[in-house]
Amino acid sequence: MKNTPSPAVINRLPRYYRFLSDLKEQGLTRISSKELSTRMSLTASQIRQDLNCFGGFGQQGYGYNIPELHSEIAKILGIENSYKAILLGAGNLGRAIATQINFEKRGFSLIGIFDAKESVAGQMITGIPVRHITGLDEFCRINKPDTAILCIPKSEAASVVQQLINFGIKGFWNFSHYDIASKYPDVPVENVHLSDSLMTFCYKMTEFE
Amino acid sequence: MKNTPSPAVINRLPRYYRFLSDLKEQGLTRISSKELSTRMSLTASQIRQDLNCFGGFGQQGYGYNIPELHSEIAKILGIENSYKAILLGAGNLGRAIATQINFEKRGFSLIGIFDAKESVAGQMITGIPVRHITGLDEFCRINKPDTAILCIPKSEAASVVQQLINFGIKGFWNFSHYDIASKYPDVPVENVHLSDSLMTFCYKMTEFE
Repeated sequence: MKNTPSPAVINRLPRYYRFLSDLKEQGLTRISSKELSTRMSLTASQIRQDLNCFGGFGQQGYGYNIPELHSEIAKILGIENSYKAILLGAGNLGRAIATQINFEKRGFSLIGIFDAKESVAGQMITGIPVRHITGLDEFCRINKPDTAILCIPKSEAASVVQQLINFGIKGFWNFSHYDIASKYPDVPVENVHLSDSLMTFCYKMTEFE
Repeated sequence: MKNTPSPAVINRLPRYYRFLSDLKEQGLTRISSKELSTRMSLTASQIRQDLNCFGGFGQQGYGYNIPELHSEIAKILGIENSYKAILLGAGNLGRAIATQINFEKRGFSLIGIFDAKESVAGQMITGIPVRHITGLDEFCRINKPDTAILCIPKSEAASVVQQLINFGIKGFWNFSHYDIASKYPDVPVENVHLSDSLMTFCYKMTEFE
């Protein structure tokens, strides 16, 4: 029986994928559910429940076939896709994301970078020219990106998001503090709120003491 | 009756804090639980349950007192603290974090930045000199930082984390893919795995289609 995956399960999937990638790189082909659970600091039953949401993959007495599970999770995540992404905001954070993330291995290709500063336009980041934001419309008409990465201030995000949706953008990887979901509840959004994460860390430190 | 806060509740606390900060800035002093739930795209019952973990704050027929709830959540998060943080790794991501995060408002002060590259040492980032990693020991003895932000590659993280714990670091805001919790289960760690987040976004895009 399949369970419906909760947001928590969905958030754990990339971690399974990462651990299985490591095991695969080490040349391993099989792992017991006990060993996998120890490595991932989860219980074996938790892993079973998580994977059951997608059909279940372990065999009693055998454990998990690593390459098989790895490729199944890749399929569930959809990373064989190549969503065309544009990055808005070429400040420090935008640059870090453009240079440090391996988009191709995560289901995306980064095809354009935009910034509102005239002085930044024309610079190259990881082989991609930074374009001035005024060229966004034309670029989208020609290249048809389907996803956008927002590394712009909250104050600019509201109008940019509306524009991007008009230009055909279907989902957002959102580093700004603008709350896309409250205005566009049906648009796929993955938020990364670094200050929220820092406050959660503060809570953990405070609880620990 | 207090519930024990789950990790999901703890992850929502900063979001409550952020929404309440906005409401406070708008000069509002009171909000109905219905209005708060609409703004946050949660149910009123979910909010009640979350806040009950910390004693509960709403009053039937009144709603929530905004400045009061804001300050209570600040206390729960512990952001009146000033944990002394050092940042390891002055690449694009380290720079973005040092320059874009308001540490003082989140319970921290950033007191030092370190990098393994000789060529980066001596540069200033947001008024803080980048030090070469060889000076870490002495710096920690004199300045006694209690938290570290890891923006270094996974391959370097294992040895650096052990060193930092020896030097008195008690918790980590971890952007590297090194799994601190599996080796040090009792150390407070908040992970930010950007590639995991991108894969979760890929899943959401794929599900949506």
